[in-house]
Amino acid sequence: MALGEFDLIAKYFQRPARRSPLGVGDDCALLAPAPGRQLAVSCDMLVEGRHFLSTVAPERLGHKALAVNLSDLAACGARPLAFTLALAMPRVDEDFLDGFARGLYALADAHAIELVGGDTTAGSLAMCITVFGEVPAGQALLRSGARAGDDLWVSHAPGGGLGDARLALEMFRGRVPVSPDLESLRLAMECPQPRVALGVALRGVASAAIDLSDGLVGDLAHVLRRSGVGAVVDVDALPVSAALAALPADLRRECAVSGGDDYELLFTAPPAREAAVRSAAAQAGVAVRRIGRIDAAPGLRLVDARGEPVGGHFGAFDHFATR
Amino acid sequence: MALGEFDLIAKYFQRPARRSPLGVGDDCALLAPAPGRQLAVSCDMLVEGRHFLSTVAPERLGHKALAVNLSDLAACGARPLAFTLALAMPRVDEDFLDGFARGLYALADAHAIELVGGDTTAGSLAMCITVFGEVPAGQALLRSGARAGDDLWVSHAPGGGLGDARLALEMFRGRVPVSPDLESLRLAMECPQPRVALGVALRGVASAAIDLSDGLVGDLAHVLRRSGVGAVVDVDALPVSAALAALPADLRRECAVSGGDDYELLFTAPPAREAAVRSAAAQAGVAVRRIGRIDAAPGLRLVDARGEPVGGHFGAFDHFATR
Repeated sequence: MALGEFDLIAKYFQRPARRSPLGVGDDCALLAPAPGRQLAVSCDMLVEGRHFLSTVAPERLGHKALAVNLSDLAACGARPLAFTLALAMPRVDEDFLDGFARGLYALADAHAIELVGGDTTAGSLAMCITVFGEVPAGQALLRSGARAGDDLWVSHAPGGGLGDARLALEMFRGRVPVSPDLESLRLAMECPQPRVALGVALRGVASAAIDLSDGLVGDLAHVLRRSGVGAVVDVDALPVSAALAALPADLRRECAVSGGDDYELLFTAPPAREAAVRSAAAQAGVAVRRIGRIDAAPGLRLVDARGEPVGGHFGAFDHFATR
Repeated sequence: MALGEFDLIAKYFQRPARRSPLGVGDDCALLAPAPGRQLAVSCDMLVEGRHFLSTVAPERLGHKALAVNLSDLAACGARPLAFTLALAMPRVDEDFLDGFARGLYALADAHAIELVGGDTTAGSLAMCITVFGEVPAGQALLRSGARAGDDLWVSHAPGGGLGDARLALEMFRGRVPVSPDLESLRLAMECPQPRVALGVALRGVASAAIDLSDGLVGDLAHVLRRSGVGAVVDVDALPVSAALAALPADLRRECAVSGGDDYELLFTAPPAREAAVRSAAAQAGVAVRRIGRIDAAPGLRLVDARGEPVGGHFGAFDHFATR
């Protein structure tokens, strides 16, 4: 017998409340940040065919749906507290729900956060998560704090880099031949690791931060516009995996520069804070690389290892674009 | 030329921040409830064909998407502060966005709340709103507070009542002949008025509360289960519009008892608080009616005006059911 809406909430998504006074099951969840702390809130919707392929394992999808939201908290330097989940799916599919809940809760447990509310409905497969974190008042990392002279940094997995998720997507789309690296690239696309510990460690160190969800070019543009500055980026200094490094330069640069779905932190800091940046990264267990600098002249200038301008058009990933 | 994702956020959904330190456009919004207050959070997703018909005017849809969420805050007695919006739509349709934003902001302005974050993407038309409100610590209205002997109350519009939204839906579906009342019934379905002022006024008065989104029977069942009590409801005492009153008793009762989409408050209070209940309703400008009582014996007993049990099966509205 098919589970109804309330039964499936109870079966898959109800757990005892811990930090929140009320868990799933009243009209609202109640949250109270500690005195002197602000609540950081972010919200992302994932839609089948746009943010994930129909071939993704439910467990990885559960992970990713929460991971992309935790990545926004990381970019603010906020410590995660809780989240809500709204889930639309064509029919009640218990195998899907079982896997999805497992992936979701594994990541939630890793960050000691809890699901405090939600909604389920029939519809095309889509999920919307709103995450809540807390940050000491006035200490949130913002997009607007970059200053001329700052170094520009990006985080990456040891051995990994920017563009892996995009390369996996292009292999699935058939634009790039499938290689033996597909499984590891696919993991980058389907199981991004939100840089929460790094974001917290960068409070008071980074001058600005954003998470890379729409690709380096597009996301950096937000920082530059908000901060009223420009930047020079050495595209050959971008951290890339061995799989991406083996590709022709134009394809490698396209994936790394405007790939999307990286969920690494892009941040700025004065050169004098280099040691503090490296210490924060070490503390968080994440690699970081300096990829350029902020300058006063507006606009983004991409250069190669010799300092020569890099041609070609690199755009942001746009969820309404057809490509 | 079609607007891209970031342009449309800027054009339709970006306004200067007021209460929130950060408005739309950083990775997170920052919120800080006043000292001694808890943040109430709720999240609802609306999907075309399930929660609204494709024929709804965009302006009314913008209103409804926020209204159903404010209704959850009302049920907790929370005062609204802010909300986030995630919007999926098949393509960028500026006429739709213009109307949707107008309806959304008209209701937001009426409650002096602001949009603090969001996400837009391509996909089947669906929207997910998360609302934030505040309530003095420990004063939130819960589902679990009903006690044997309490009166059971429901709010309604003057001249309106439960079941109007369901009757409109049945007329659109062709199960009930279209009548000249359709326009006013349609307004109930498409433009519900969240009972925010009543919820706030009932703090310290009501012993339990819930908003009616899935129909009286289904929503009351949540209160009874959470409170560990039962109830007797006089189905002929339910407030109904003239349009519904004109229908045969079985159809009238079906709409009023398990209609769904009412967004009225169902609440309980000790008989000694009757004057306080009426005063809260008057202060909020909403009508209230006593429709039954809570008793210790578990289960819900529906009776008619003569006190005789009412037969028939009345279920909750289930968003996965096909009917």
